[in-house]
This record gives sequence, C-alpha cells and structure tokens, in this order.
Amino acid sequence: MSAAGVLTISREESKMPSYLKTVEKWGVQEIEVHGKSDGNPYMDYTIRGIFRGQDEQVETDGFYDGDGIYKVRFMPSFEGEYHFRVEGTFSEETLEGDFTATAPSEGSHGPVRVAQKHWLSYEDGTPYYSVGTTCYAWVNQPEERQEQTLHTLKNSCFNKIRFCFFPKYYQYNLKEPITYPYLRGQSAGQDPERVRKAFHMPFIPDEPVARVTDFDCYRFNPEHFRRFDRRIRQLCGLGIEADLILMHPYDKWGFATMSRECDMLCLKYIVARYAAFRNVWWSLANEYDLTCKTEADWEDYAALICEKDPYHHMRSIHNCMKYYDYSRPWVTHCSMQRIDLYRHVENTDRYIETYDKPVVWDEISYEGNIDMGWGNISGEELVRRFWEASLRGGYAGHGETYMDPEDILWWSHGAVLHGTSEPRLAFLLKILQQTPGKYLKHGGGSFDEVVGIPCDNEKKGGFEPDYCNYEIHYFGFGRPSFRVFELPADSVYKAEVIDTWNMTVADAGKHSGHTRIALPGRPYMAVRLMKEV
Amino acid sequence: MSAAGVLTISREESKMPSYLKTVEKWGVQEIEVHGKSDGNPYMDYTIRGIFRGQDEQVETDGFYDGDGIYKVRFMPSFEGEYHFRVEGTFSEETLEGDFTATAPSEGSHGPVRVAQKHWLSYEDGTPYYSVGTTCYAWVNQPEERQEQTLHTLKNSCFNKIRFCFFPKYYQYNLKEPITYPYLRGQSAGQDPERVRKAFHMPFIPDEPVARVTDFDCYRFNPEHFRRFDRRIRQLCGLGIEADLILMHPYDKWGFATMSRECDMLCLKYIVARYAAFRNVWWSLANEYDLTCKTEADWEDYAALICEKDPYHHMRSIHNCMKYYDYSRPWVTHCSMQRIDLYRHVENTDRYIETYDKPVVWDEISYEGNIDMGWGNISGEELVRRFWEASLRGGYAGHGETYMDPEDILWWSHGAVLHGTSEPRLAFLLKILQQTPGKYLKHGGGSFDEVVGIPCDNEKKGGFEPDYCNYEIHYFGFGRPSFRVFELPADSVYKAEVIDTWNMTVADAGKHSGHTRIALPGRPYMAVRLMKEV
Repeated sequence: MSAAGVLTISREESKMPSYLKTVEKWGVQEIEVHGKSDGNPYMDYTIRGIFRGQDEQVETDGFYDGDGIYKVRFMPSFEGEYHFRVEGTFSEETLEGDFTATAPSEGSHGPVRVAQKHWLSYEDGTPYYSVGTTCYAWVNQPEERQEQTLHTLKNSCFNKIRFCFFPKYYQYNLKEPITYPYLRGQSAGQDPERVRKAFHMPFIPDEPVARVTDFDCYRFNPEHFRRFDRRIRQLCGLGIEADLILMHPYDKWGFATMSRECDMLCLKYIVARYAAFRNVWWSLANEYDLTCKTEADWEDYAALICEKDPYHHMRSIHNCMKYYDYSRPWVTHCSMQRIDLYRHVENTDRYIETYDKPVVWDEISYEGNIDMGWGNISGEELVRRFWEASLRGGYAGHGETYMDPEDILWWSHGAVLHGTSEPRLAFLLKILQQTPGKYLKHGGGSFDEVVGIPCDNEKKGGFEPDYCNYEIHYFGFGRPSFRVFELPADSVYKAEVIDTWNMTVADAGKHSGHTRIALPGRPYMAVRLMKEV
Repeated sequence: MSAAGVLTISREESKMPSYLKTVEKWGVQEIEVHGKSDGNPYMDYTIRGIFRGQDEQVETDGFYDGDGIYKVRFMPSFEGEYHFRVEGTFSEETLEGDFTATAPSEGSHGPVRVAQKHWLSYEDGTPYYSVGTTCYAWVNQPEERQEQTLHTLKNSCFNKIRFCFFPKYYQYNLKEPITYPYLRGQSAGQDPERVRKAFHMPFIPDEPVARVTDFDCYRFNPEHFRRFDRRIRQLCGLGIEADLILMHPYDKWGFATMSRECDMLCLKYIVARYAAFRNVWWSLANEYDLTCKTEADWEDYAALICEKDPYHHMRSIHNCMKYYDYSRPWVTHCSMQRIDLYRHVENTDRYIETYDKPVVWDEISYEGNIDMGWGNISGEELVRRFWEASLRGGYAGHGETYMDPEDILWWSHGAVLHGTSEPRLAFLLKILQQTPGKYLKHGGGSFDEVVGIPCDNEKKGGFEPDYCNYEIHYFGFGRPSFRVFELPADSVYKAEVIDTWNMTVADAGKHSGHTRIALPGRPYMAVRLMKEV
C-alpha cells in the first residue's frame, strides 16, 4: 500500500477474507480483472463496479488498461466492511468480494470540499489553505525531470498543482511529449469544424500547426495514462491536490479539435480512471475561451463529469479573457485568471460575494522574466497578490517563468525553482494556519489597507471601525512608518508587526484605545492584532 | 518689469505717452489708484476697468488692496496700443490712459488652453506637457521656507503647482499660517448649517476643531493676498502654472464654513486680483466631496468664475472619493484623484473618452512614508504612474510625503525634496517633448503593455497590430527579457530601449518584419520605435 493508500485486488485475491484486504478510508481500492481484448475495448465493452458499505453505496465505471486488463477503482468514504461486484460486457462472468476500509493514515484528511460556502476544507473538517502552483506539462517531460519536480514539490509549501493530460504546444513548449494520450494510427475522431475554429498562435509564426491528427482518437494509450496514475498517487502522498486540466487549446496534434464524441469518450475514461484518487480536482479547461468549443459543449461535458464522478470532486473551468459563468450549479469554485493587468486579486471579496463560492486565483501572472506580461512579475509582486487574495478570503496560485537556455520553465516543465516567492508563500501559509475560526474574510478597513478577519466575525468599517478578536491589517505596496489604531479603550490587544517579505513576526506590545504602532516604512508589511481575553 | 511682466500705472503716470508705458503681451498691466476707504471698501464700493485694443475689448473688476488703494489688473492677449478707463463708485473721478503691449519675452507662451479637445497647449501653440507638483500650504509658511521652495522649484522639472489660499488644518498641518485671509474681528460671515455639516478629522482626536471663526469674513487681509501676488508672479517667472485651490475642507478657523455670500465675495476678490496672471488655473476645491457645500453651490461658484474671469483660465474641481461631473460645460479638464488603490491612471484613456476633455491626475498617491496610503508609495511606483498616464494621453502630478522631525513635508509645506522621483519625471518630460505631432494618445497594444502614439495617428490593435511612425511601448512593473514585434516587412524602424528609472535611452538597432528586441529583464522599461523615412 502506497502513501496514497491504493489496494489492488485481482480476481484470484477476491475470494480471500476481507480482513486480509484492507484499504484505508479515502484510499483507492482497485480491482484488476482480465477481459475481452478483441475489437476496440475502449469503445466496445462496459465495466462497472458496485460498492456497498454500511454508510454508502457507490456505482462507478471501470476502464480498459490495455493488454486485456480492465480496472475498477473505488474510494471508500467510510470505515468498515464493503462488498463489491464488478459486472459488464467486458467478461461473461461477474466478480464479487469483500474488503475492509480502515482508518485513514496520518495526514490523510479526505477530498477537498467547499466549506461554509466560501472556503475550502478537507472532508474531515481540516481547513485547506490552498497554495497552488502550475506545471502544465510536467507529466509529459522526461521521467528524470518528473522526479526532480516531485522532489522540488516535496520541499515546497505547495498543496495544489495544476497540470494537463494532453501535451502542450505553445511558446517555450515546442518539444514533443514522452508519450501521447492516443495510439498512432489512421486519423480518426477529428471534427473539421473545430479544426477550422482552432486557436492560432501568432507568436510562433514559423511553425506550421498541424490540426489534423495522425492519431486514432478512439484508442487511448495506456502507457500515457498509467504515468498519470503514478504521478497523481505520488502527489497524494505528498499532500498535494492534483488540479487536472482536462482540455486546453495549445495543441498541434489534433487533440484540441476532436469531435464531441471523442471528447466525451476521453472525459469518461479520465473520470473512471482517476476519480477514486482523493486529491483529484477537475479543471474542465485551461483558457476555455481560446478553444474551439462552445458553452453548450462545456455544459454537456460538465454534466457528464457530474454524472460519472461518484465523489463530487472540485470542479471548475479556467478563463483567459472572459470569466465563465461561475454561478452554474456544477461549478464548485471560481478558478480565475486575472482579466486586468492592474486590478484582479483586489476584487476577490467582490467575486466571492457575486458567485457565492470560493475564489481560487489560479493565474495572477507568474514570477519570471519572459517576454509576456503574464510571466514576468517580481517575486515581491506575486507574494503581494497572494496576501491580497488570502486576506480577502480567497486563494491564489503560483507559477514561475524565468528564461532558461534549455527552455525548462517551472510553469510548464517543472524541474526546479529559481525565484524568490516560494519561501514567502510558505510563510503566508504558516500565518493562515494560525487563523482562529479556520477561515479569513475581508474585514473592510480603511481605503489604504486590506484587513483579514475570522470568517465568523462581523465588523463595521468606515472612519470609526470596530475591531474583531483577530485582525490582520496588510499595507501591500504602501510604506507606512506607523499606523494609528482606534482600539476599544476597555480591551487589550496584543500587536505584532509582520514583515511578509522578510518573513518575520515581531512583538509590537500591548495596545488599547487610540494607539500608534511603529512600522519600518518598507512595503509588504502587516499588523496583526489579537484581543487578549 | 518683472519676469512675469507686470506694469503698474499710477494715476500720475496715466497721462504719460503710451510708448513709455509698455507691458508685454500676456504680462500684467496694473492700474493703481486711490479711492474711498470709509465703511467696508471690500463691500461698499465698485471698481471696474475697460481695456480697448485693436483686437480685443476686456472689462474686468478691480479690487481694494487696503490703505485706500484700489487696483485693476489686465492681461493683454495681443500686441499693440491699448486704451483703458477705470470707473466705479470707489472714486468720484474716472481714470483713462493708454499703454502699449509689446511682444512676449522669451519663454512666455501665454495661458494654458485645451488643445484638440484632449490635450494642453500654451496659447501660442507650444504644447504644454504638464508635470505638476503639490505644496498645498507653501505660501502660508514662514517666508524663508517659501524662498527655499521657490529655489527647489527652480531646479526641478515641475511646470505646475497646486496650492491653497486658505490655511490648512490637517495631519502634519497643525501650525498656524503666517497670515490669515481675513482680518480678525467680531465673527461675521459664518453659516451655522455649514458649520454643522463640516468635515471632521478623526485622525486628530485630541485637537478641538473650532468651526466658528473669530474673523470678520467680510474684510480681507491685504497682506495675505499681496504675498500670493508675489508668489504667483514668481512662479510665472519660473514657467510654472499656479493651480490655485480656492476652497478646501481642512479648516479650524471657520473659513470652510462661511456663508454663500462670503464665499462669493471671496471668489470675486480672488478672480479680480489674480485673473490677469497668465499662469493661473482655478481649482474650485480640493476634495470637494469632503466639504459642507452642495453641488448647487459649486455650480453657482463656477458660474461666477466664468462670468468674472475675462481670460477663461483653466477650471476644474478636485475630488476625494467621488468624481465631480466633469462633463459640466464650465469644467475645462478633469482634475482627478485616484478613487481606487490599484487601478486609476490606467483608466486615463477611458476617462479622456468619457469626458472628452484632458485628464490631469493631480493626486495619485505621493512618494513618501507617512502612515496613510495616499502618502507612502515608492518613487518607482509614482514614476510608473506618470508614464501610464502620459502614454495614455493624460497628465500626472507629483507630491512628496516623507516623515520629518519638524513635520515639513513637501506636499504641504514645500522646502526641499527628499525623494527619488523628480529626476525621473524630468527625464519623462524630455521624452514627451520629443513627441512628433505634439501629443501622445493611447495606441492600444497588447494586454501587457501600454503604447503611446502621436495623437494624429490611427492604429489597429489586437493580435496583428499595425504600427505608427512613432510608438513608445511601456512595460511598467513587467520585467520582460525581450519583446517580439511584428513590424511591416517593407519599413525600417529605428528602435531604442528606454530605461525610465535609470534615465537612459539606448540604441537598439534597426528592425523590420518579425523581430525581437532584447531587454534587461528589469521593471520600468520601454521600447521606442521610430519609422525611418
């Protein structure tokens, strides 16, 4: 059993007593079985598992993994005895058996869920302070680089990573992936209308973009998907959510211009294969508005995922220029890219209110120095954006795009970090973990500060604000030499000066009534006030 | 005759031949005459000048200057012979005479006017690239400090300064002015309703704010206004526009809560006294929305200024939280303070379009380190805001608020500069002066840059932009290591890399077609493209 808790039961093992077959709650119970391999097993046969425990009954699709092997995966959400049955046209026989779901191991808190409408928590109630990163194509890089990426992630604060199944063709991404999701063969599964409407990449003018595939988009390449099995499981073991990007426009192989039928087939395959991993999130698309697909397509695809995913993983869709309608019922959270160069995370509280859902800023420009504005902000500015988003009750995502002689940029390829922001994000995460009442929300404050307060507090703003038991006043790029607070005269507040860039928390004494707290006149400072009881 | 070209004619001199009495075009012709001093000469008597030249006839009010002296001031807008007559109840006799208006001296270009709807130019057609600063209370400081301020201004790039007639009571402004605009006496001229509605300053909790004056607001203090005469004339000699703030809310003496009658009396006095100075602008109020006055008040006051000012000086009104309706016909330009912490000058082109008038960002946070967000940004950020505003076709203003043991902050008191932005603004001004076609406007560009192009050019944006003869691409806080340009294949462009912070312009060679220009991966860089003909 790996850290991610995968138990594989073969047909032979299925008859063994259940106490010999244990999987932990929120682990993956996998049933592996031989079946028919004639024709196109991805299309021609069905496989389905029914899992019955005392507290739940789950029906889920299985999938063909090549070489005559079919698999069904299940994530138990409760401890206790389970009975399973696997059936379908894949075989003449059904398969039945029992297993035991045990207590989760330390560090396993279950899938991430929406908590109190606007925040995120693991299923066991532990708050999830999302500090994401982005390595779009890391699982399509050479194996050695993938291992390096995992090593970097292990030593980082990141607890979510966004990446794609399909290979990526884009600036700094002109190399072929190590495998393709489909088998080569006679071109099959293309939609000519979508080919016509496909996104063009004007910044790669010398590269002919082949839009008609020489792949058979009805036949998956199991080797490709097995690698994703392994990587998702390893991320799970590191406590990192896998925000899986199901579709994207950066393509020259024809995968972005498949027919609806092939898109649906692919989505079903991916959900059947990965839904049982507790750390999976579904990102329907990256920059959906650059693809050749319509709103009707996205809505149908989302409906399919809702139907097929028995665990209701987090679901969203990521924009380029125009936000998707995040009020759609299937959207669990806003997965946002900034649509303005100057004001974006500063709207976090407004978007939370508008959509009544958690806001995750998955793209707010990356730390780096590439040519494009989405990839050349400073570490200071990226960290500032994280603090803005966090104190306003949202979550933010990191990425790094420093020029590299081999074009190995963390944002797409992974490998190692070169920037300055990550340690500061770790520091922010530590501060967030100290939040009383679990979650922060925007607490008004003056025009020139952002104030985070506990989510269960209420606060009156304006010229004569009141004060909560816990407040973080953040001054962003401002460089105040001091700040005046009008604290209640009958309470005592412990004050701390937080240097969010130099990662220090300094005692600033105890305060009551009209009071002044000295600051160093540098940017990126905060004052934390904690009422003494 | 001073550098500002003031000619004073007394009753005795009025009979001398006109060639002995010359004033330059756009200079000040002043007629000084004795009159009645019984009762309240500010209220009880009228004085009026009629000036006739070949190209204009101007009627203008005079004013009482104390000690039985009345004055009438006139600015000739043409060269040639003028005849004048001074009349009114101030005296039993009228006064007539002639004088000659000569060519303006070098460096005198006339009053600033709106040019081509969206820009500013001197009356002689020389473009006016406004680089303003703010020293609200500098003329109310000790004389020595005023001289120091003028010395600083002389060695700076600033060509506009905003300041108040009335003394200022506010944070860092708790000292008394050297003179008051009214004579002490039995309180007269207060409006009790306005006293009730007056702006409160919560950040000065220990200071009792007296709202009822012990001044007689029907009797001006000539000493106060004579000092402003001198300072405005000296600014004119330095080529600096005097953006006169007529009213403001920061008051403890009762001057902000006078009756409408007293406000009107004061405005008439100021216009009669200062309109003949070519460098005068009328700023109806600073932070009008913090005062006790209504929109009807402002509209009436504006109408009065329009009626009384024969020279149609620039007119606006400055906001705190809410923009005034700049589409009002009397408003010549938008005098804006940022109303958002994050996005403001970036809206310059939008506001120009909305109001169809020039946009002057008179307050975009000051360089400094005081407690409040409006006064603690870095020099880098202030300079960035200037470039944003300028390349989008607008103008911006500087201010400096560094903590000082004596509370001498440039923004209010003048004296000396401590910051880093001024030399960079001088550099920007030099670049702006090189604009072909005089004025820049926003030329679209990609999402991640600001492009300034000559005002008479048209440009198509998007993924395949065309190029003008002259373009400045500015990358703000972005740190690109290079940029790709898709120039026309059949033209040659000379390229320069401008480091707006380090104040260098480096030759970047000649370019055609698809081309790449190297940049240093630092913020605040620009690329200038000039088509070779």
